[in-house]
Parts: sequence; structure tokens; C-alpha cells
Amino acid sequence: MTDFSLETIRKGDKLALSRVLSRVEADHEAGRAALDALFPFTGSAHKIGITGAPGSGKSSLVNALAHHLRRAFPDARVAIIAVDPTSPFTGGAILGDRVRMPDLQNDPGIFIRSMATRGALGGLADATLALSQVFDAAGYEYIIIETVGAGQAEVDIVNLAHTTIVVDTPGMGDDIQTIKAGILEIADILVVNKADLPGADQTYRNLAAMIEMGYRGTGRINGGHHRSANAPTDRPEETRGWVPPVLKTTAVTAQGIADLMNAILQHQTYLRATNAWHEKENAAMQLIVNKLVLEELSNNWKQNLAPGLYESVLRALRQREISPRAAARALLAYNSK
Amino acid sequence: MTDFSLETIRKGDKLALSRVLSRVEADHEAGRAALDALFPFTGSAHKIGITGAPGSGKSSLVNALAHHLRRAFPDARVAIIAVDPTSPFTGGAILGDRVRMPDLQNDPGIFIRSMATRGALGGLADATLALSQVFDAAGYEYIIIETVGAGQAEVDIVNLAHTTIVVDTPGMGDDIQTIKAGILEIADILVVNKADLPGADQTYRNLAAMIEMGYRGTGRINGGHHRSANAPTDRPEETRGWVPPVLKTTAVTAQGIADLMNAILQHQTYLRATNAWHEKENAAMQLIVNKLVLEELSNNWKQNLAPGLYESVLRALRQREISPRAAARALLAYNSK
Repeated sequence: MTDFSLETIRKGDKLALSRVLSRVEADHEAGRAALDALFPFTGSAHKIGITGAPGSGKSSLVNALAHHLRRAFPDARVAIIAVDPTSPFTGGAILGDRVRMPDLQNDPGIFIRSMATRGALGGLADATLALSQVFDAAGYEYIIIETVGAGQAEVDIVNLAHTTIVVDTPGMGDDIQTIKAGILEIADILVVNKADLPGADQTYRNLAAMIEMGYRGTGRINGGHHRSANAPTDRPEETRGWVPPVLKTTAVTAQGIADLMNAILQHQTYLRATNAWHEKENAAMQLIVNKLVLEELSNNWKQNLAPGLYESVLRALRQREISPRAAARALLAYNSK
Repeated sequence: MTDFSLETIRKGDKLALSRVLSRVEADHEAGRAALDALFPFTGSAHKIGITGAPGSGKSSLVNALAHHLRRAFPDARVAIIAVDPTSPFTGGAILGDRVRMPDLQNDPGIFIRSMATRGALGGLADATLALSQVFDAAGYEYIIIETVGAGQAEVDIVNLAHTTIVVDTPGMGDDIQTIKAGILEIADILVVNKADLPGADQTYRNLAAMIEMGYRGTGRINGGHHRSANAPTDRPEETRGWVPPVLKTTAVTAQGIADLMNAILQHQTYLRATNAWHEKENAAMQLIVNKLVLEELSNNWKQNLAPGLYESVLRALRQREISPRAAARALLAYNSK
């Protein structure tokens, strides 16, 4: 069924790993079979999401963190999935993160994968989850997922991570502040990067104050009643007990990276001590199985449609002869026969 | 079935309109019935998407454009849907666009709606489409949709617009450049806003050169072979004949806004002269009906599941006793009985 060797990729053969990743990303039968074959070997990696506004130095931070993890744990391997949702059409992050992380390429224990398109897998969250399963099965202990911190897609992706790091930086404009307000609430760890810049202390104090307010005041952060009860990747109740630390880093000089790594490890310990790690895994499993079920339902529906029916219903809809719900009923009525 | 009067909202009763919008956004039965009842009256509005990086002055530009449209066409009404996907958890764009557009609130021919959550409607694209249908039926000739220009969600939203305006501004950092590379390709009109700032000419020349390259050189823009052939909202073939103009504006002083409006009207003429307007409508209809069909399929499936089956399959999956595909098969096998 599969023509790759799990042993080969577990031993660190990057070419073999690369081949499997491409198949999974293409989402053809070979990729799906690979995911199924790898599945029993997944479940031990620590997924770390890093997000923040454009210009916050996320890539440098990921770079520094990956290096530090490798120095601290020489036997552990680190995978980096750089999600660049801003380039959905080009098929490649030409100005993206790959070219900005040259020194990581030479470490045999680090693997970088850029993902510029939503690709065949549909949602970016699905695609990120699928790739991280491959890395997980391949024996990568840490999987760092870097996304641009603006947009629902990013929130979906970081919700799949065990630990979410939100990166802020001094001197951002008004729009960035708006971004911050939304994205702060998903943070397990807050980082003020470029801490050597003027205004870093003020940014630090602002973030610390927001955390203070959120966790001791209204109690809204991570448990607000405004959030949709139906969102499958909602933060589990258990993480309410974790108060996100605020850290200062200067990624380009590796200042503060040791503290950041320690905070990540502390969060890991916290997740494992509570039910939260389990809840995260459950949410990921739901995403995987729901996607497959919905796809199958949709495919069955399409296959059972009479030729030309979809087009004629769409035409009637476009001409406002029928309502959208009547159109859906017409398309499903045939199906149930 | 519905307890609102179409005549009332067509006459400009903002309270009645506001009530319908809220119902549609909540996606309860009343909202769905309202959408169905309004549907025959949709199809004439011109949807204008405005997107750009944080800090590019999109809101000021929307403000200036709405004012200008109202002055040029006093009988035409303008709706603004401000999508703030960066605040998915708070349920309201507290720092968002509503507070930044105070002068628009006093014009009876302008209606502003902020959308901070993906809400009950699932995707932001679905929600934006639903709200724009209400405005369309209510007789709003121009519907301006403003989004933060980073992320797949934004691309989905702007693909629903008839005319997409991408806003750039001088002096943005490296990450912003990356955003630009991805988002440029969806532009029908390019705007260098804050054209009074130093570097505006350089930004203008860069954009003009990219357009020149894309349309005369590689021919990749709007027709690159890397794009997914399956994406339902792909730009139609017909728009290849339109070469996006690059304009300079200073939104806060309304400099260049008249030219921007003229470019929008020219694009409208172009769309109507080709098949492109029709294709846009078709894509929107597909989105609407596919959403309803998939929802119904999913609901039927859930209702026919044996109690406890989902949980037990998920448990087996979590413990790696079965593969994801075996799990999906188990959940669907029961269903087909």
C-alpha cells in the first residue's frame, strides 16, 4: 500500500521524509495511505504554535528557539512548519521564511517545511495537522508551527498546537493593536520580541496588565461567554488554570530564548498534569475524522447527482426563480432516492 | 414566516435593517427564512472588496470612498461591512472600525456593519456573503467589504467581491512585503495610500513594475498554473483581459479618491461587458447552495449516529487502535443502514 519505509524516515532520511510530506500535502491516495500507515506512531510530539503580527520577528524567534532546543536536547529533533497564508496563489513563499532561515538548513536534526498554499487538503488547519502527523511519526519531538498572526485561519492552526506563543514587539501601529486584542486570548506564552528597541518596557507592561486584567479581573480570557460553544477546537476548560507568562526576547542575539524554552517546558508539564493535553489530542482526532466523514458524504452526494441537475438548479437560482433553500432541497431530494 | 417588511428596509429604516442583519448573522431559522425571502430582490449591488496590510489606512480609504460615492450618486446607498477576523473571541471589534468612522454614521444613505466573529455562519466568507445579500435586497447599490489583508479568509472574502482593491502604503517592513506578494494577484485595482509620505513614488513604481511583469512578462498573475483547479472562487478566465491600474491616494484629504471611484466604475463596465460579472454571481450561488447541502448532509449523518458511537470511535482513534480512515468508515457504515 505504501512504498516508503517508516524506518528510513525515523532514521533521519530527509529525502524520504520530504517525499512523504509532499504526498500527504497533495492529498492523493498515496498520501492518505501514508497518513494511515504512520498514524499508529503519532501522539508524542509537542506542537508549538508561534504567531504574531507581520514584522514582529517570528521567523528569527523560531530560528533561535529551534537552535536552543537542539543544543539543550541533542537527541531531540525539531520540525518547523512555516505557514504562509498570505501567498495562496503563488504556490511558493518566494519571499518567505525558507530563505530567511539559512543556518537551520545545515542541522541534520532540524527539518523546515514551508506551506504557502491551502493546497489540496482544503483548510490550512487540516494541512498543518496532516504534516505535523508525519513529523510526529517520523520521531520529531518538537514541531514548531509559524503563522502570520491575523485571521481566523491562524487561530484555527494555533488551536491545534499544544502550546501557543504570541509574539509582540514595540512600536506597532493602531491596526496592530487591534490584532493584538484578538490574538492575545489564544496565548499560552506572550513574548515581547525586539526587546532591545525603545518602548519595549512599555509594551511589556501593557501586555502584563492585559493578562492581569484578563485573569484576575473579568476572568474573560480563555473562558469568555462570547465564544462559540460549537467551535470544535475551543480551548479546554482545564487551561484556565495556566496564567500566560510575559517574556522579553531579542531573537537575533538569542537573548531570552532560554527563558522562553523553559516556559514551553513548564507549559508542557502543566498540560500533562491536567486533562489539557488529552483534550488537545481529542480535538485533533475530531478534526481528522470529521474531515474524512464530511468528504465521503460530499463525494457520495456528488456521485449520485443526476447529470446536469446541479447546473440547472444553479441556473434557476441565479435567475432568482427558486430560493437557496429550495435549491438545496432539490439537490438533496434526488440524492435520497 | 418572516416578521419584517422588505418595504420598510428598502425605504431606509436602519433599525429594521439592523434587526434583519442580526438575525441573518445569528443563522437561526428566522435569519434563514429572511435570507430566502430577500433572495429574489438580490443581484444588483456592486460588491467592492478593500484589503491591505495593517496600517495601510484601509478604513480611512473606505470612509473617503463611501463619502465620494454618496456625493457622486446621491440616490445610491452605500453599505460597509468591516470584517475584523483578528478578534474572533471577543465578539466585538472594540478597537475596530466602527469607532474610527464616526462621520459616516450621520449619513442616512450609509450603513456600517462590523463583523468581528466568524459567528454562527461558520466561515467569514459565508457570513459576509449572507450580510451582503441583505444589503443587496435592501437596495444598497454599493457594498464595500473591508478586510485585513493577511490570510486565506481574506482571500476568500475578496473573491466574492466584484472588484477587489488592494491597498499598499510606503515604508512597510519585510513581512508586509511578503503579504504584498501574495495578495497582489487578487487585485483589480492597486492603491498606494498615504501618497504624501516619503517613498510613495518608489512604492508606486514597484507596484507598477510588478503589474507590468505579471501581465506582460510571465503572464502568471491571475492565471498561474500553481493555483488549485478546484478552488470554487477562482478568478474567472475573463478577468485576464483587465490590467489593474495603480493609483495614488491620500485618504485623509480625499486626494485621488475621485480617480479611485472612476477606476471602480470602469471595472464594473468591464465586468458587465465580459462574462466576468456572471461568473462572480455563479461562484456566489455555488457557495450558498453548497453550504446548505453540506450542512444538511452533516446534520442527517449526526442524527442517524447510534448514541455513543462517535465517542467510542474517537477513543479507539486516540488510542491508535484504528486508523483515521477506519474510524470514518465505522462512522459512515452505521449511517448507511
